Amino acid sequence: MSKFAVLGHGVVGSGTVELFFKNKEKICRRSEMDLDLKYILDIRDFPGLPYSDLFTKDINVILNDDEVTVVAEVMGGVHPAYEFVSECLKRGKSVATSNKELVAVKGAELLRLAKEHSCNFMFEASTGGAIPIIRPIHKCLAANDITACAGILNGTTNYILTKMLSDGVSFDEALAEAQRLGYAERDPAADVEGHDACRKICILSSLIYGSHVYPEWVHCEGITALTLEDAAYAKSWGGVIKLIGSVKRTKDGRILPMVAPRFVNKGSELASVEDVFNGIMVYGDGFERIMFYGRGAGKLPTASAVLGDVIDCAKHKITILSQTWEDSRDNSFIADYKEDTVRLYLRLKDTDADEVKKAFPNAAFITREGQPAGEIAIITDSEKESAVDEKLYDFKGRVCGRIRLLDI
Amino acid sequence: MSKFAVLGHGVVGSGTVELFFKNKEKICRRSEMDLDLKYILDIRDFPGLPYSDLFTKDINVILNDDEVTVVAEVMGGVHPAYEFVSECLKRGKSVATSNKELVAVKGAELLRLAKEHSCNFMFEASTGGAIPIIRPIHKCLAANDITACAGILNGTTNYILTKMLSDGVSFDEALAEAQRLGYAERDPAADVEGHDACRKICILSSLIYGSHVYPEWVHCEGITALTLEDAAYAKSWGGVIKLIGSVKRTKDGRILPMVAPRFVNKGSELASVEDVFNGIMVYGDGFERIMFYGRGAGKLPTASAVLGDVIDCAKHKITILSQTWEDSRDNSFIADYKEDTVRLYLRLKDTDADEVKKAFPNAAFITREGQPAGEIAIITDSEKESAVDEKLYDFKGRVCGRIRLLDI
Repeated sequence: MSKFAVLGHGVVGSGTVELFFKNKEKICRRSEMDLDLKYILDIRDFPGLPYSDLFTKDINVILNDDEVTVVAEVMGGVHPAYEFVSECLKRGKSVATSNKELVAVKGAELLRLAKEHSCNFMFEASTGGAIPIIRPIHKCLAANDITACAGILNGTTNYILTKMLSDGVSFDEALAEAQRLGYAERDPAADVEGHDACRKICILSSLIYGSHVYPEWVHCEGITALTLEDAAYAKSWGGVIKLIGSVKRTKDGRILPMVAPRFVNKGSELASVEDVFNGIMVYGDGFERIMFYGRGAGKLPTASAVLGDVIDCAKHKITILSQTWEDSRDNSFIADYKEDTVRLYLRLKDTDADEVKKAFPNAAFITREGQPAGEIAIITDSEKESAVDEKLYDFKGRVCGRIRLLDI
Repeated sequence: MSKFAVLGHGVVGSGTVELFFKNKEKICRRSEMDLDLKYILDIRDFPGLPYSDLFTKDINVILNDDEVTVVAEVMGGVHPAYEFVSECLKRGKSVATSNKELVAVKGAELLRLAKEHSCNFMFEASTGGAIPIIRPIHKCLAANDITACAGILNGTTNYILTKMLSDGVSFDEALAEAQRLGYAERDPAADVEGHDACRKICILSSLIYGSHVYPEWVHCEGITALTLEDAAYAKSWGGVIKLIGSVKRTKDGRILPMVAPRFVNKGSELASVEDVFNGIMVYGDGFERIMFYGRGAGKLPTASAVLGDVIDCAKHKITILSQTWEDSRDNSFIADYKEDTVRLYLRLKDTDADEVKKAFPNAAFITREGQPAGEIAIITDSEKESAVDEKLYDFKGRVCGRIRLLDI
């Protein structure tokens, strides 16, 4: 008999409990073990539930119960999740978490603790919600040299961008709609400014390249500045705008993680990932490219991933050594994005084709319906982003749009 | 130090060896172990290779070497692969295989052998090539009630269908092109008649529902009878034709596995899986739907999956109990497809709208360019397939096209 506890009875926590009880018999039969939920930690009271007797307000009840071998942390935020998770691991209890912030900020340390105490710290739910991505990368693709990864990692912003591109509604209107539907928080900053996607690309980068990538080391742009004019140019160019979390190895052996809106060509599989869905493309020498696609957030999708880890931890009580990375002293292994070669979409005002051609002789001009006089939009030839910056110095105050192309 | 052997130095075998030596240093560093290839079994000689000294013609050399703890079986075919794999497992050597025929025909028995001898029988490479699908289903999605699975599981037929739909070339021309490019064998029967996809849906069905599904129990149709007329009607209806391997649970608790061409609506993610790519959609209560997409065959993609299993077996010497299923005495758990409710595309000749309307009052009529007099094409309303058969009795000899819609 294996017993587990759930820390936090919010959206994901209640989903985890519900999905477990719904499929408990199937889970036990398939995994050939008795698994049961023993505690739910929450400071609030939840009377009247079929499992109200499982609640406790005291983490020590869980920590001191040797029968509990696995803990699902679904509280969110770094504190007190970090303290609770550390204590669990120190007592040899494996932890499954959906907490991307915790993994992005404390992952290396918690993975080390798990190893030291012969248990597991698992986080399939932290990235891509229900979509299997952590285990596939570190197990199924373990024989490959993974050269890059690029994904739509945040469903809220993808919903907003889909609305802007397909229905022609403004960013503000699309955000309001997302909030009305419950896809976006009342304070949408973590989503629309790219921080959520940033945490996820930190986790993927750390897992793929073996050194902890901290969020503050990642160049991160959100989607708040995007306009319907940019969307119109993206369409006319033959693509869409997506918020892409990406990481690639650069020629000098460093890595370049980034979160930014991108022009994505219709020919790319990522272009057709719409609404709140996530899609994550991984590139490697043995398999070329593989995409993982599904619901990247939400109560039951996230619960599905948390419980998958709980079951794995309960069944296989050995430490999964491959799901790990080292802490990193400094960010010298991270490349400067300004030194990367890119193609850019640029929208310039109060200018003309001749002036733009002089600065960008190889650029392709694109047009849109209702394009006002003096507005020029181009796709630049590939060159170092710092070189583009220099050229744009002459256009100071006249750059209204600037979005990198996704060229992987 | 862990040592492994490779059985067979054909396309996949040589890819497995090449990919391992290319990434050996990375593999060992990331997995924190020394892993090396000790033997390659083949009846042929391969002089002049950097690893020619590893070849042996005698399986007993491998069987009797206790240093070899993992064996990659990449020979294909049931015999002598089955005998070799059984012997390896009986001696406690874990096996990773790409051999879908072996798994589809002998899977339950080999999984039981592995359990009895405390080792693993793994087959990530048997389905979807490089695409992670076996481990994601039995680990990441373990908490879910998986209700259905539908996928494009054969790259050769998908290439042929893509050519027919996009370029308007006939089946024969598209097949010849696929053979010229090396996508199709000289004897293409296993691909175009659906047998390859059938083996894969047997493996997925067995894994998901826990009872071995044998290929002879699965209704299997290939693509050889498809015409450009059918392709034109699919387009006019708003979709494409794909060869789909699928399984779903029926209302009476049985399962319905099937391989058949399907009309797939453009709105489905599977419709945009083109050329030799595979896409596998899994449906479950916690996650709604998840798609796995990538190269489903080929030298290095298959090698990538084989080596992922080899690394997992070498690192974690415990039996992965969840990747298993029971043998089944009979096929009473498999539903009769004729009793399933379907919508069908039907193309009828020597008829008129009135006659067709009489038999199918709720059908939708579709048209194509150049549609000759007397040709009628419809999409039927959903009803039992056996009921459609009865109605078609009156159209005997006049049914030129009949393809199920993919309605999941």
